[in-house]
Amino acid sequence: MKLRLVTALLLGSLCLPALAQFQTTEQAIKYRQGAFSVLGAHFSRVAMMAQGIQPFDAKAALENAELVGNLSRLPFTAFGPGTDKGAPNRAKDEVWKDAAKFKAASDKMVAEAGKLEVAARSGDLEALKAAVGALGKSCKSCHDDFRGSRRE
Amino acid sequence: MKLRLVTALLLGSLCLPALAQFQTTEQAIKYRQGAFSVLGAHFSRVAMMAQGIQPFDAKAALENAELVGNLSRLPFTAFGPGTDKGAPNRAKDEVWKDAAKFKAASDKMVAEAGKLEVAARSGDLEALKAAVGALGKSCKSCHDDFRGSRRE
Repeated sequence: MKLRLVTALLLGSLCLPALAQFQTTEQAIKYRQGAFSVLGAHFSRVAMMAQGIQPFDAKAALENAELVGNLSRLPFTAFGPGTDKGAPNRAKDEVWKDAAKFKAASDKMVAEAGKLEVAARSGDLEALKAAVGALGKSCKSCHDDFRGSRRE
Repeated sequence: MKLRLVTALLLGSLCLPALAQFQTTEQAIKYRQGAFSVLGAHFSRVAMMAQGIQPFDAKAALENAELVGNLSRLPFTAFGPGTDKGAPNRAKDEVWKDAAKFKAASDKMVAEAGKLEVAARSGDLEALKAAVGALGKSCKSCHDDFRGSRRE
């Protein structure tokens, strides 16, 4: 019992900085949704070049990939405890129930976003295609496990 | 009449790159709202230090100010023609009716965001306070002129 209390306090204080960044859970939810939205738009611009839907423009690919890299870390700062409620959102309970797996999935996404930047910097379309595929796969995998239907 | 047509075609083609970035006006609206949301969160973290609500941490101030600088350009790419409709939003008709004034207001905001980064890099709290004040003023001024009540 004592150990549990200590653990709870410890977890509480570890989570405090992340929680303290947002005044309300609604703000945290809007923030992460906004960050995913902007991130997704820039990733899709790179992906459309990689898939040949848009002509390959190395400069534009790099600008967008850098934004993807910079933005990739942001949304995961806004999944603090209690942020399952406060505004409509699609995060499954598993985000908090299986926090270690969610952390691994988010770390994977951030790592793949970093590799996308490296590939874009190389200017090599084939490298970019591979990096787009890997990042896309990490997005999909995390959505499959942690994104469900909309809840109010 | 002919001149008007030429002007319309010219404006149309000038706007094309911005429009082409988004598949639908809904996407453009969600993108700019998301970008403003994330931008606002990071600006508020710097502002809270400048106002003494949070203790001044030069490293955190710089990280947040850099995000503000990087993000400041993004939302204004998503106010293309026709993006007054497609999702609920608060942009007034003046955004498109008085495009030159809106452009000046957005340029001012981007410039002030750049100055915030410079101030944060100096590590001088007084410089940061001044830059926060100037950027906050440019936000408010643009909201006063171009942000109205929510429309569906």
